[in-house]
Amino acid sequence: MPAISQKGVKMPPSPIRKLVPYADEAKKRGIRVYHLNIGQPDIPTPENALQAIRNYPDKVIEYSHSAGIFSYRKKLTEYYARHNIRITPDQIIVCAGGSEAILFGMQTCLDPGDQIIIPEPYYANYNGFSISAGVEVVPIPSSIEDGFALPPIAEFEKVITPRTRGIMVCNPNNPTGYLYSKEEILVLKDLALKYDLYLFADEVYREFCYDGKKHFSVMELEGLDEHVVLFDSVSKRYSACGVRIGCLISRNKAVISTALKFAQARLSPPTLGQVAAEAAIDTPGSYFEEVYNEYIARRDVVVSAINKIPGAFCPNPSGAFYVVARLPVDDSDKFCQWLLEDFEYEKQTVMMAPASGFYSGAGKGKDEVRISYVLNVEDLRNAMKCLEEALKVYPGKRL
Amino acid sequence: MPAISQKGVKMPPSPIRKLVPYADEAKKRGIRVYHLNIGQPDIPTPENALQAIRNYPDKVIEYSHSAGIFSYRKKLTEYYARHNIRITPDQIIVCAGGSEAILFGMQTCLDPGDQIIIPEPYYANYNGFSISAGVEVVPIPSSIEDGFALPPIAEFEKVITPRTRGIMVCNPNNPTGYLYSKEEILVLKDLALKYDLYLFADEVYREFCYDGKKHFSVMELEGLDEHVVLFDSVSKRYSACGVRIGCLISRNKAVISTALKFAQARLSPPTLGQVAAEAAIDTPGSYFEEVYNEYIARRDVVVSAINKIPGAFCPNPSGAFYVVARLPVDDSDKFCQWLLEDFEYEKQTVMMAPASGFYSGAGKGKDEVRISYVLNVEDLRNAMKCLEEALKVYPGKRL
Repeated sequence: MPAISQKGVKMPPSPIRKLVPYADEAKKRGIRVYHLNIGQPDIPTPENALQAIRNYPDKVIEYSHSAGIFSYRKKLTEYYARHNIRITPDQIIVCAGGSEAILFGMQTCLDPGDQIIIPEPYYANYNGFSISAGVEVVPIPSSIEDGFALPPIAEFEKVITPRTRGIMVCNPNNPTGYLYSKEEILVLKDLALKYDLYLFADEVYREFCYDGKKHFSVMELEGLDEHVVLFDSVSKRYSACGVRIGCLISRNKAVISTALKFAQARLSPPTLGQVAAEAAIDTPGSYFEEVYNEYIARRDVVVSAINKIPGAFCPNPSGAFYVVARLPVDDSDKFCQWLLEDFEYEKQTVMMAPASGFYSGAGKGKDEVRISYVLNVEDLRNAMKCLEEALKVYPGKRL
Repeated sequence: MPAISQKGVKMPPSPIRKLVPYADEAKKRGIRVYHLNIGQPDIPTPENALQAIRNYPDKVIEYSHSAGIFSYRKKLTEYYARHNIRITPDQIIVCAGGSEAILFGMQTCLDPGDQIIIPEPYYANYNGFSISAGVEVVPIPSSIEDGFALPPIAEFEKVITPRTRGIMVCNPNNPTGYLYSKEEILVLKDLALKYDLYLFADEVYREFCYDGKKHFSVMELEGLDEHVVLFDSVSKRYSACGVRIGCLISRNKAVISTALKFAQARLSPPTLGQVAAEAAIDTPGSYFEEVYNEYIARRDVVVSAINKIPGAFCPNPSGAFYVVARLPVDDSDKFCQWLLEDFEYEKQTVMMAPASGFYSGAGKGKDEVRISYVLNVEDLRNAMKCLEEALKVYPGKRL
């Protein structure tokens, strides 16, 4: 029997899915499980995107251009211009979700053994893409006490080696919800220039900025065109995760022409998803206002509920729809599993993602969980009540 | 300015797309270009697949399960049972096209530096996926004289080393159209068992078998469950290349559980494409009969026309919708470019894929082209007339 690859062995299981079998068992016992573990919003996809699919006119569902349908890329430039990002269609490679964009970015820019610095906790799947590309993630700590702000410049410089080839940030951040300020992005610019590093940015939560704060994109940086590679996705923006449409954007011509070769090997991004995504660009502003208000209300429910629990702490982040909270528990992996296996409150329980999967290396984030506030306010209140009650009786409680 | 990766530098440009700029220029000069370079059929997508999209019922286009929508995988097992392939839904990972399936298969089973043996000429994008995975393709020659049949067992054994971990075949074959017989597949079984190798098979043209010949799948082999990994796609079967739906199938549990980790990292295959593909499984047999008869007629036009050209030769393959033909030219790369740049016959010309891109290493296939017979009979006749006339005047002609 031939062996599995080393990469396959190293590949981590998804931290947000490993508890799914326990949730399924709980449901079989008649327990309602509030899913705060995943980033699948319940917000409807904009009507114009759905209509575009329902009116699909062609007789053959053909390949698109490997870089994406031209009219879609052109329309994307209008979308980006509204966000002060000035680009041309040939600086865009449309991808099968932000996931493929990240993989193409790593494969295009980094060699096996190269290092990228990522503040942690970070989006767990960066580990998967890094393993695929043979790249080493070098984490630097951000801290729950200051809301997971950008680590000081000295933390970056401490870990830079001859193999360091890039810095990666997710802004607004998954899993912490932290929104990096313009000043913090300028710090990254200085680092990228000083050490000649790629600056990779995952900005798929661009629209989800609260408290009057503005998103500042790495694409707005001047004098860094050769270093910046942007990863984007329409999944969260239009609550259309299933269309699998994202993109890689860069003004660096060699990056684009090389990423295009990877794109050509897989022929085409999904055509139907591009049709939906192109139509979605015309989504009226009222849709986003409604979504914005909804998420603010949800965040407030979660953050205030957690901070009322003795021994628990949760920052009040200004972006995305996640928080990382510290709970008075021995081990959040055990706690999250216990919630599904051994706990119920009025026939309900809550599923969260243990934060350990968002850290590199064992033992970190052991008393933290990621909560996605992707349910309505009523459900979130019930879920938080479950959490509160659970922490009164959890055997591994620590204060 | 940070450097591009070694993989990015090595990544070959698409052999079927590199001449596109010349075709675009020809069109600007008012010349009609017959596209025989690409595998995009003009056959309509089945009406039930299009209807499923037009009736898409949900309000949110959500992620599917990372391995694919369960009802789709279940229905796929019925499709495969009709082809004598007995599998269960949990032996299937639905992927973004056959492309992603091949990449997952390589990443799951092969380490960087490992070798896979592939009879050449072979599908050009295997090179791209191999470079992505850091795997080395070891080609062994098949020959136009015997229609590109499976090379003798001695050719395989000659190149087996301690780094050899798999054999890959495409059946029916792209680019040659050759349909491997059951006997040939049994030879591969013996090799896989003797040397404990993975047997990878790309069977995306399963439905396209002519002349009364039957397809024999590697999944029908007995006693090889741990070694066989099947790559499939609905792109050609239902003329729905743009849905980007394929799958990886194996009875080897470790392969599936590892491939699932790669699948989880990218979250989900395209949801809309799966909806179309699931509906397509109910496509009536009359659709395939029509398609079958159409392709037979097209193949006959192409094969007989080429064999009438002095100095040209084309086998009469029994599968897929490609032929590799030998032409009396100095260099088919130059010839194919010349057809677009310097030739026209009654304001028409033809675009073909030089075969060099389907071989590994320089200098091979220099007098061969791949022709996709994806146009209607009338257009194919005109295209073949262009080819005939071109070969009367091409300056680099060799007899």
